[in-house]
Amino acid sequence: MTSNGRFDLMDGVGPRPEGGVYLDNNATTQVAPEVVDAMMPYLTEFYGNPSSMHHFGAEAGRGLSDAREQVATFLGAKAASEVIFTAGGSESDNLGIVGTLRAYPDKKHVVTSAVEHPAVLGLGKDLEKRHGYEVDFIGVDADGRLDLDELRAKVREDTAVVSIMMANNETGVVFDTAAIGEIVKAKGSVFHVDAVQAAGKLPLDVQQLETVDMLSISGHKLHGPKGIGALYVRKGTRLRPLIVGGHQERGRRAGTENVASCVALGAACKLAESHRGEETTRVSALRDRLEEKILPAVPDCRRNGAAEPRLPNTSNISFDYIEGEGVLLLLDRAGIAASSGSACTSGSLEPSHVLKAMGVPFISAHGSIRFSLSRYNTEAEIDYVAAVVPRIVQRLREITPFNREKATF
Amino acid sequence: MTSNGRFDLMDGVGPRPEGGVYLDNNATTQVAPEVVDAMMPYLTEFYGNPSSMHHFGAEAGRGLSDAREQVATFLGAKAASEVIFTAGGSESDNLGIVGTLRAYPDKKHVVTSAVEHPAVLGLGKDLEKRHGYEVDFIGVDADGRLDLDELRAKVREDTAVVSIMMANNETGVVFDTAAIGEIVKAKGSVFHVDAVQAAGKLPLDVQQLETVDMLSISGHKLHGPKGIGALYVRKGTRLRPLIVGGHQERGRRAGTENVASCVALGAACKLAESHRGEETTRVSALRDRLEEKILPAVPDCRRNGAAEPRLPNTSNISFDYIEGEGVLLLLDRAGIAASSGSACTSGSLEPSHVLKAMGVPFISAHGSIRFSLSRYNTEAEIDYVAAVVPRIVQRLREITPFNREKATF
Repeated sequence: MTSNGRFDLMDGVGPRPEGGVYLDNNATTQVAPEVVDAMMPYLTEFYGNPSSMHHFGAEAGRGLSDAREQVATFLGAKAASEVIFTAGGSESDNLGIVGTLRAYPDKKHVVTSAVEHPAVLGLGKDLEKRHGYEVDFIGVDADGRLDLDELRAKVREDTAVVSIMMANNETGVVFDTAAIGEIVKAKGSVFHVDAVQAAGKLPLDVQQLETVDMLSISGHKLHGPKGIGALYVRKGTRLRPLIVGGHQERGRRAGTENVASCVALGAACKLAESHRGEETTRVSALRDRLEEKILPAVPDCRRNGAAEPRLPNTSNISFDYIEGEGVLLLLDRAGIAASSGSACTSGSLEPSHVLKAMGVPFISAHGSIRFSLSRYNTEAEIDYVAAVVPRIVQRLREITPFNREKATF
Repeated sequence: MTSNGRFDLMDGVGPRPEGGVYLDNNATTQVAPEVVDAMMPYLTEFYGNPSSMHHFGAEAGRGLSDAREQVATFLGAKAASEVIFTAGGSESDNLGIVGTLRAYPDKKHVVTSAVEHPAVLGLGKDLEKRHGYEVDFIGVDADGRLDLDELRAKVREDTAVVSIMMANNETGVVFDTAAIGEIVKAKGSVFHVDAVQAAGKLPLDVQQLETVDMLSISGHKLHGPKGIGALYVRKGTRLRPLIVGGHQERGRRAGTENVASCVALGAACKLAESHRGEETTRVSALRDRLEEKILPAVPDCRRNGAAEPRLPNTSNISFDYIEGEGVLLLLDRAGIAASSGSACTSGSLEPSHVLKAMGVPFISAHGSIRFSLSRYNTEAEIDYVAAVVPRIVQRLREITPFNREKATF
């Protein structure tokens, strides 16, 4: 990549949007200004510890309590006490799964899927390798849809917990949580759902999803800050804490509550709900526009994963014969932020475990790019990206060591 | 307590400081304005995921990396890679202890003290009750000093980890971490130190404290935000993660890094170091002034714990024959925030486990109040508190059901 390459690439593309184009919202989102405003008083004047018996503590306690109500409302929970605040999606997932295993020490079987986020997948492997658990990883088909027959065959009477995501973070493919829940409940297992990517993009209602015992969300995936999340735990579900000690969160998560960030999560949830219509109309239309422009313009490229049901903001496209990292670097030079696979596994040269589980060939998986939009994206941005991407792919194919006519790997 | 009580109490006390007097800094501290300023850009423009391969990610990554350097410098760590960011003191303590136990699965013995913060004490009890560990809780003398002979007798070849705090959160009594470390290392155990209350108040230098393998700090105890902490792990120390999944924190703590709060912790550490001189001079003098005014003015009251070595900001005073909760309520009416025992155990009617371990009689322990100062307190505030406290104690004694002349409990 020389500076020449850069000038060629951008030639005649049209004006570069100011501040760049952020299409990596499944990795993390911009904190909504309204959310920053909501949390600020708790970073400045209302600094008390909610456990404290004085007005400084009471102010903090009110903020915490209101935030818990907001999160409960967002999830459709019956009671605010069903919401446990955590430090994020990974902790929520770990608490849900490990907390259940600790509550049922005699059940040594866990079921999850092969396409989970590392917070669940990595934990599953760790439970298998180091803690004496038997763990089944359910596969997906070529379109990224969960194999319900395999799930039905694997869930057993001694399965402590089944953890299956609501929507995949890399492809956006949405699983049938209700159908999964029926299978899980037929065997009496606890059902945990990682809804980190679904929250704010799909309707979430744990009253309707009555088989869901626990559900994880993360603040920074829905325009809240990093470092805050929640685990919904249906009343009556047994759970032991992961972080042990103080009385906080009804003994299910020790540590002084991160009041400002809890307030932020509450505000982000409320805001996400009010914008959810826009996700399924305007954001979804922008995503479709991006695909409709890129897919016909680039030879040897295809969308990974089923078109529907899919998260409205997510598009995963494979460009054969090139490296996703190269695409990302040139996109970044053009001011465009996207991702190859999940940010949590980037830095590794391994192809995405999700695409691998779908059977996407190596030659395609290596050149896969995830574009994930948000309510802050505009049509002008999408058109800019759609103009830049084919040029980048063409340029990389010109200089790739793998001539695609002769490629045999 | 009637409204009459209120007027009597404040009669002739002098002007009430605007905004109240916050003397509960061992529960949580006001976030320093400089810290809020430092974190704000990471809550607004620099919102990338540090794992992402684009400039949004790189900006976040730089903030995270600089913050880690600042925390490492504050602790005297040799390398920034020895710092693991966590969601707070409780998680740091849990990670240090549980992470060590997971790294040494064959060692089933743990040593800690009877006066630890709930994050360590509660975990120790849980390990004993539910996880098959043998746990020894080392006692303290009447002045709150650790029994080093008992420690020496209890640490064994199969002791996986010894966790002893650097300074007690309720009394402020400082332990001899160097002497403890020598005892621990003579048996080859891992030494974890909960320095949550010490950080910012005492010099911290893990190069000098060469027997310390791991050390916990918490942001919100040193004028940083809640929900962020760190665990120092000396290079070469084996540790397994508590939150399992992603690659973050070199595989020792999964989950997208809370960049804004990491930056805040770095800034708080830097600021704390620059203010530490003031802690040991001005703040300490204010604390002594408070004691010198209250102790002679109130009959049947005494300081709990050794006068020295003690955290410069902490005073724990017992007022016999009355309930601490009553004192706190009247203090709060006067705009003064203090604590009875630790905030993490408040809400319970049990007397403080720390005072109990020191052998403080029930009648004194129940009426104990912790005053914990910060660099934001002024002499005028201290004089106001010193004028109010004797009146409150007198009032409560007048109406107490326990006439102290006849008290037999």
